[in-house]
Amino acid sequence: MLDICLLGTGGMMPLPERWLSSVLLRYNGKMILTDCGEGTQIIMRKAEWGFKEIEAICLTHYHADHVSGLPGLLLTIGNSGREENLVIIGPKGLKNLVECLTVISPQLPFGIELIEIENNKGCEILQNGVIVEYLSVDHNIPCFSYSFNIKRQGKFDPERAKKEGIPQRFWSMLQRGEIIKDDGRTFLPEMVLGEERKGLKVSICTDTRPTLGMADFIRDSDVFICEGMYGEDEKLEKAIEKKHMLFSEAAKLATDGNVKEMWLTHFSPSIKDPEEYLDNAKRIFNNSIAGKDLMCKTLSFTDS
Amino acid sequence: MLDICLLGTGGMMPLPERWLSSVLLRYNGKMILTDCGEGTQIIMRKAEWGFKEIEAICLTHYHADHVSGLPGLLLTIGNSGREENLVIIGPKGLKNLVECLTVISPQLPFGIELIEIENNKGCEILQNGVIVEYLSVDHNIPCFSYSFNIKRQGKFDPERAKKEGIPQRFWSMLQRGEIIKDDGRTFLPEMVLGEERKGLKVSICTDTRPTLGMADFIRDSDVFICEGMYGEDEKLEKAIEKKHMLFSEAAKLATDGNVKEMWLTHFSPSIKDPEEYLDNAKRIFNNSIAGKDLMCKTLSFTDS
Repeated sequence: MLDICLLGTGGMMPLPERWLSSVLLRYNGKMILTDCGEGTQIIMRKAEWGFKEIEAICLTHYHADHVSGLPGLLLTIGNSGREENLVIIGPKGLKNLVECLTVISPQLPFGIELIEIENNKGCEILQNGVIVEYLSVDHNIPCFSYSFNIKRQGKFDPERAKKEGIPQRFWSMLQRGEIIKDDGRTFLPEMVLGEERKGLKVSICTDTRPTLGMADFIRDSDVFICEGMYGEDEKLEKAIEKKHMLFSEAAKLATDGNVKEMWLTHFSPSIKDPEEYLDNAKRIFNNSIAGKDLMCKTLSFTDS
Repeated sequence: MLDICLLGTGGMMPLPERWLSSVLLRYNGKMILTDCGEGTQIIMRKAEWGFKEIEAICLTHYHADHVSGLPGLLLTIGNSGREENLVIIGPKGLKNLVECLTVISPQLPFGIELIEIENNKGCEILQNGVIVEYLSVDHNIPCFSYSFNIKRQGKFDPERAKKEGIPQRFWSMLQRGEIIKDDGRTFLPEMVLGEERKGLKVSICTDTRPTLGMADFIRDSDVFICEGMYGEDEKLEKAIEKKHMLFSEAAKLATDGNVKEMWLTHFSPSIKDPEEYLDNAKRIFNNSIAGKDLMCKTLSFTDS
């Protein structure tokens, strides 16, 4: 099971009635936070998922509304009794950014492992088994979209195991993914498993224009969380100038990427009620949802 | 008239039900903010005093809970149409701090004038006429207390003006503080004014143990805003270790400094309801008040 919590839905600046856009995922008891603007730790406290088990923080880019909460959050994670290393992933400049921001939180009881993204696309595998893919996108400073993938191995197939002549005492080890060498023979996990089954996928694209590679990047996501800075199609010029998206552009991506559902987020402070403009997205992609602070969902594997 | 707004009352970390300790003052249409932790701009928006007219930001010290909101606030001031310079006053290291934090808010439409405090005590006069005094206090990093003073000149005294033989056409100019040279004679404002009258004074002491000079520093304040990290006298050892104050220690200062009223603030996250411990302060200084987020007061000159 993968839990998703959209902590906030605001862009540019935090408002009394809307926290800054950021997303918390939880899998295997460990959490991944994407973006951390001013106040993210406050709404995170409301989510009641704790702070200690954040395994990684993924930063899309280094505008204040996406990173200014980092030093305070690191201190709060420290106060939670955290001692294990924390991973922070982000575009080039990450080392400098973290050094600068932690000038006000210099002593932390845990280490920080920085992964500075070098290429336009790639992936990292976290300890909780989540595969983090990233893709360079189109904002006015270097910016990345992320997708979080949980692969699911095939079902155990005893018939196949027998056919391969694998001694029964190795079956459970192979099922757990171990490679067994015995009496000159090598047994691989795939020799006892059926075909890989559908996993889970959540994609997060914010602070970008739609780009050519994005539909492939988000393809078949169970939840696609996408910025919708402007609701009205009339704001296209502004969206192009500021390198953001319209609701309708996000919906076009959702359609092209064949996602199951789309949550809009990162609303301009000028949008009082995103629902007002939601039809501009639904017309193109029916399963468009206007994100709300603390909106949560649990994804489960679809077959057993 | 001097308006005071206690924006938040929390210490260490921002909580969903308590913003971080900071104080906004307004005089002559201009504002002075003391400290700016994570979320200060959010509660400031709730206060509805605007952002454009912040003349100065005074920082007590550089722990995250007092400064982490700075880059976001500067951007928000920028978005308010501000073009005039902004003054930031703080302990040694201010230049480095501001350079580091503004790595995420690099382009601002106004200049920043930094006043890095060099001495243990001193003062600055702001453009709105407020005299900012500062005093080095006792925390685990360099830290200053501030007092904000508005002087009030004496009443216009026509009898004195006549006695000095000052032509009537100069009276109003002298009253406004101008120096007049006429026909070889020099007329000074004090030649038409009675004795200086009682002004207004607000003092803010946070993140410090009580110190020897503090009672004099806050002397006769109309409002003394003081940290009360711990409510119970039994926490003295912890207060000494962490370099903070008990409610009762703050109250002793209020008594020694002969202030009119004391507002307690900067409560430990472990204090759910500061009122519970308020008697520990009131026993020593009766006019002790447990601060609340967005608690405001307007001070007026006492005679006309």
